[in-house]
Amino acid sequence: MKHSTGQASPYGTDELTAQVQRKFSEIFERDVEVFLVPTGTSANGLCLSAMTPPWGNIYCHPASHINNDECGAPEFFSNGAKLITIDGPSAKLDITRLRERTREKVGDVHTTQPACVSITQATEVGSIYTLDEIAAIGDVCKSASLGFHMDGSRFANALVSLGCSPAEMTWKAGVDALSFGATKNGVLAAEAIVLFNASLAIEMSYRRKRAGHLFSKMRFLSAQIDAYLTDDLWLRNARQANAAAQRLAQGLAGLNGVDVLGGTEANILFCRLDPAIIEALLRAGFGFYHDRWGPNIVRFVTSFATTAEDVDHLLSQVRRVVDHVQK
Amino acid sequence: MKHSTGQASPYGTDELTAQVQRKFSEIFERDVEVFLVPTGTSANGLCLSAMTPPWGNIYCHPASHINNDECGAPEFFSNGAKLITIDGPSAKLDITRLRERTREKVGDVHTTQPACVSITQATEVGSIYTLDEIAAIGDVCKSASLGFHMDGSRFANALVSLGCSPAEMTWKAGVDALSFGATKNGVLAAEAIVLFNASLAIEMSYRRKRAGHLFSKMRFLSAQIDAYLTDDLWLRNARQANAAAQRLAQGLAGLNGVDVLGGTEANILFCRLDPAIIEALLRAGFGFYHDRWGPNIVRFVTSFATTAEDVDHLLSQVRRVVDHVQK
Amino acid sequence: MKHSTGQASPYGTDELTAQVQRKFSEIFERDVEVFLVPTGTSANGLCLSAMTPPWGNIYCHPASHINNDECGAPEFFSNGAKLITIDGPSAKLDITRLRERTREKVGDVHTTQPACVSITQATEVGSIYTLDEIAAIGDVCKSASLGFHMDGSRFANALVSLGCSPAEMTWKAGVDALSFGATKNGVLAAEAIVLFNASLAIEMSYRRKRAGHLFSKMRFLSAQIDAYLTDDLWLRNARQANAAAQRLAQGLAGLNGVDVLGGTEANILFCRLDPAIIEALLRAGFGFYHDRWGPNIVRFVTSFATTAEDVDHLLSQVRRVVDHVQK
Amino acid sequence: MKHSTGQASPYGTDELTAQVQRKFSEIFERDVEVFLVPTGTSANGLCLSAMTPPWGNIYCHPASHINNDECGAPEFFSNGAKLITIDGPSAKLDITRLRERTREKVGDVHTTQPACVSITQATEVGSIYTLDEIAAIGDVCKSASLGFHMDGSRFANALVSLGCSPAEMTWKAGVDALSFGATKNGVLAAEAIVLFNASLAIEMSYRRKRAGHLFSKMRFLSAQIDAYLTDDLWLRNARQANAAAQRLAQGLAGLNGVDVLGGTEANILFCRLDPAIIEALLRAGFGFYHDRWGPNIVRFVTSFATTAEDVDHLLSQVRRVVDHVQK
Repeated sequence: MKHSTGQASPYGTDELTAQVQRKFSEIFERDVEVFLVPTGTSANGLCLSAMTPPWGNIYCHPASHINNDECGAPEFFSNGAKLITIDGPSAKLDITRLRERTREKVGDVHTTQPACVSITQATEVGSIYTLDEIAAIGDVCKSASLGFHMDGSRFANALVSLGCSPAEMTWKAGVDALSFGATKNGVLAAEAIVLFNASLAIEMSYRRKRAGHLFSKMRFLSAQIDAYLTDDLWLRNARQANAAAQRLAQGLAGLNGVDVLGGTEANILFCRLDPAIIEALLRAGFGFYHDRWGPNIVRFVTSFATTAEDVDHLLSQVRRVVDHVQK
Repeated sequence: MKHSTGQASPYGTDELTAQVQRKFSEIFERDVEVFLVPTGTSANGLCLSAMTPPWGNIYCHPASHINNDECGAPEFFSNGAKLITIDGPSAKLDITRLRERTREKVGDVHTTQPACVSITQATEVGSIYTLDEIAAIGDVCKSASLGFHMDGSRFANALVSLGCSPAEMTWKAGVDALSFGATKNGVLAAEAIVLFNASLAIEMSYRRKRAGHLFSKMRFLSAQIDAYLTDDLWLRNARQANAAAQRLAQGLAGLNGVDVLGGTEANILFCRLDPAIIEALLRAGFGFYHDRWGPNIVRFVTSFATTAEDVDHLLSQVRRVVDHVQK
Repeated sequence: MKHSTGQASPYGTDELTAQVQRKFSEIFERDVEVFLVPTGTSANGLCLSAMTPPWGNIYCHPASHINNDECGAPEFFSNGAKLITIDGPSAKLDITRLRERTREKVGDVHTTQPACVSITQATEVGSIYTLDEIAAIGDVCKSASLGFHMDGSRFANALVSLGCSPAEMTWKAGVDALSFGATKNGVLAAEAIVLFNASLAIEMSYRRKRAGHLFSKMRFLSAQIDAYLTDDLWLRNARQANAAAQRLAQGLAGLNGVDVLGGTEANILFCRLDPAIIEALLRAGFGFYHDRWGPNIVRFVTSFATTAEDVDHLLSQVRRVVDHVQK
Repeated sequence: MKHSTGQASPYGTDELTAQVQRKFSEIFERDVEVFLVPTGTSANGLCLSAMTPPWGNIYCHPASHINNDECGAPEFFSNGAKLITIDGPSAKLDITRLRERTREKVGDVHTTQPACVSITQATEVGSIYTLDEIAAIGDVCKSASLGFHMDGSRFANALVSLGCSPAEMTWKAGVDALSFGATKNGVLAAEAIVLFNASLAIEMSYRRKRAGHLFSKMRFLSAQIDAYLTDDLWLRNARQANAAAQRLAQGLAGLNGVDVLGGTEANILFCRLDPAIIEALLRAGFGFYHDRWGPNIVRFVTSFATTAEDVDHLLSQVRRVVDHVQK
């Protein structure tokens, strides 16, 4: 609201946008190039297209958002680059397999060529790459001259879970371009492309405009990000979401008819629930994906807005069914 | 603010977005398909790409925004369609020339083929197509089976100037797809693609997502447009902008060192000013383009936020220079 | 040579090209639209792009040429459509899995959408789809409104092996567009796009030109195809290639150090050879892929130019090593 | 014919192709990178796409082949780069205007950016850039860091007309990439992309394959070009074509009802003919464009195959009409 009156210079030449750029440089402990955009899909598509020729390969996990949930945005923005999926447990790339694949058919004119690697942090299933894992992928990229992109739509959730610095989780581990997510963690609709490789900036500026993602009233994107970065709001939001997921996991553990699957590192939790429990929760008005990853498999996602009371309310519903069944 | 709390269904499946769709259907007096996007460039690029194959021609004025100011967005969204410029006075297409050009080389495999026509209403210089002119272009499109797109980034300004209905200015004159502008006329960052040709809707839905223009928290676009359409706010804003331009034109008329050029139909005014006047206005903190369309040619743009006082303040500065020079 | 003197009308408006079109209509027992192009990659890319929007899925086998060996041509020609691989034994699509995948996420705006299926006949490993299998895929396509493309770079080899008619192997089984191969089977450099779905023809004509594949001196492509189709030369060539593969398979069968793998339906034969045999053959000047599909796995490809003597010469080299090792 | 038997290594790894590469290096007096392709449209599209980002401008004459006669190939190959036309007499770029335009809006994110200049030598109307003119364009390119492409579909005709060396007409004047035409001057269907800027070669190799322009049996393209370059056949062919045009121009000069327009520098001649003459020539079976550039304007194109007798035959037809009318 504070920034919705008065005049401002358009297209990102305003003071607030400059301030956001400075805040990112502080947060990442170095000069960075920042491009604000309204959606994660645009952030990912623009980053990938700036690092990949049309005849290039983008290596990613089969479960990645760019592969499944963006209606081909990477292919559109890059004019037909090829997504090569590298499987691995917990939606994380198997590094050995990645190293092998990025060395295959290099220089073979019949085949699209290695161009960049994209990982999601935290991943689409809520798992988190360790700093060592990121650095190992960074080494693969460096040794093969590949770009390294991080889809950070849950960046803050991963960060507070690892307890490391933003620099450690990105450019110190070799990341060139980051889709810094904010929408899922509290802002209205804004994401930041953060470039550690400044040579991508010119390419990015024209590509952003050309794709319709340069806002005339940029300050309204900047105001969102500025507030998000002020007084650690972004980290507090992420901590709340992660804590809610933890509380949920602990509450579910040990209940009859409930199997918590995998760890709960960020704000996503998978479990197998008795069908009666699923039914009861849906009846109670909870919304979640189920039976998408397997029979009776449920995914719960907590957010910056999820309170302890919300969690406890859900848990009480589960327990009610469990008690009823046991009688 | 009202819509920034609570939960809503994502990606445009919320109630507020449905309400916006209904409001548009009322305003246009028929069923329409509405797709909200954040920028005018994305609205234009998506509309044009839904009506044009990669080997198609888009006919537009050389002064049009799509030709000059979108960094090639139409070419990007359409995968390389060709903009064919049709000149004409006051940034409006010469209809005779349009008719001729759209009949040239039809079916010639060596040449990109007629696909659609795009006009801007009000135009980039503030002129306005009459209803007869729009209908004449509509006839050209119909007889040659071309799509008809209207870039309405100043739609409301044109509408209140013509004093006609939205239906008359669009589909009743043959328009298939409209970029309904709102950002220039008061909202934060939102535009609406309004389709009168429902067969374009499927194409549009995938293309919008793929380009990163489908918002997860769609309600924040919808809330802007909903407020904009409520109680005729959009028309009141446009009337204020147009009235400010009229007041400016009348105030400038007859002053020494000032030539008002062309009419002032909407919210844009061109004039030739004595260099001393230009200098004085810049010194006083006014911002405007000058010497871009010719030596000492100035373009003033008024907006929903321009008050009579603002205009009078500018006029007083001009008169001060004029008086000083005359002494 | 016969057609290299005198004048001819350019760009395919010559009499010889018309004659080729007529010959194809005879061969396929119905009206077809024919577009000659110089390479298999262009034939495939053009066919697929005429049937697939940029946001569409092309279903193909992971081992397919379009997926591995065309440097992303389908993605380039279609502006970023997505290849979805459907595995199955012998480089043939598993039809059950195909049916399932083409029904997933239909209408989900977050995901690229089913558009067409592409099979290779004979496949990249020399196996052949039966008429029933093709018809079953045709049914999947029909029920889901998908285009059906056949990469027929070894079309003739498959045809003579099945002993059916060209019509039975294509449009009678639901094929919409065929890349009719000729280069691998004897001509210099020419392929024919054969369209059974006439509605694709306009799209094709502009796309071919735009991609630089419309020859001004078209008669030199036509002359190749005309000769190829005359007096069953194309079928005789294919029979010779297939027979050579059979002779090779029979000669290798039962030798020590040799395992013939799979059947030999067309002109491709896979076997596992003792490394000493591989080495001896390479030393003798034979050229073939080895150790690409597995350790000591060898692929032999016979052609229209492979004589019984050529085969026997190879077999004698193999036997020499076998005899030597056994002593 | 000589090369149509025996075996050769595929995809341009054969000895004949290497020989062609060497011949080009000799002809151009330096190392060059050569990529053979089947058509002029593919040569142009590939050259331009290797030098132009999707958000780049290609400056060319409004009458150029790339602008009018390739169905948008440059836009397709480049994924939507923008052709900016620079007018000038005789289908040659006005250099002053070119210099101005390439300096406009540089760095302005709202506008596609200067990327390369393309000229046609000899032009589409048969005029020829002098060496000084080419060098002046080369200077514009160099000072603005633009690529410089020459569409040389009539390269030999221009070369023998200027009487200079291939090096002087290309890289010594700043040309980076040449579409070396051969099809119009005698070969069946082959053109050579000749790169003087070696940094474009990698980009070119993948783009050629991806567009379906890499021939498996490359030797059949190479054989054409090899013969073309042997014993100055290419220059002799061009001299014959040019001489025929000269003979025609001289024969027409001074006849009643005939106005020869412009010079006849290469193998194209424009004239205004009395309608009776046009009619008589058409009746006699001559084929030529008329009434395309203006009423009664005729374009004659001579070729490597045009003999003095052919010219005299045409002249005799013209004179017959002239004599008849004068009686």
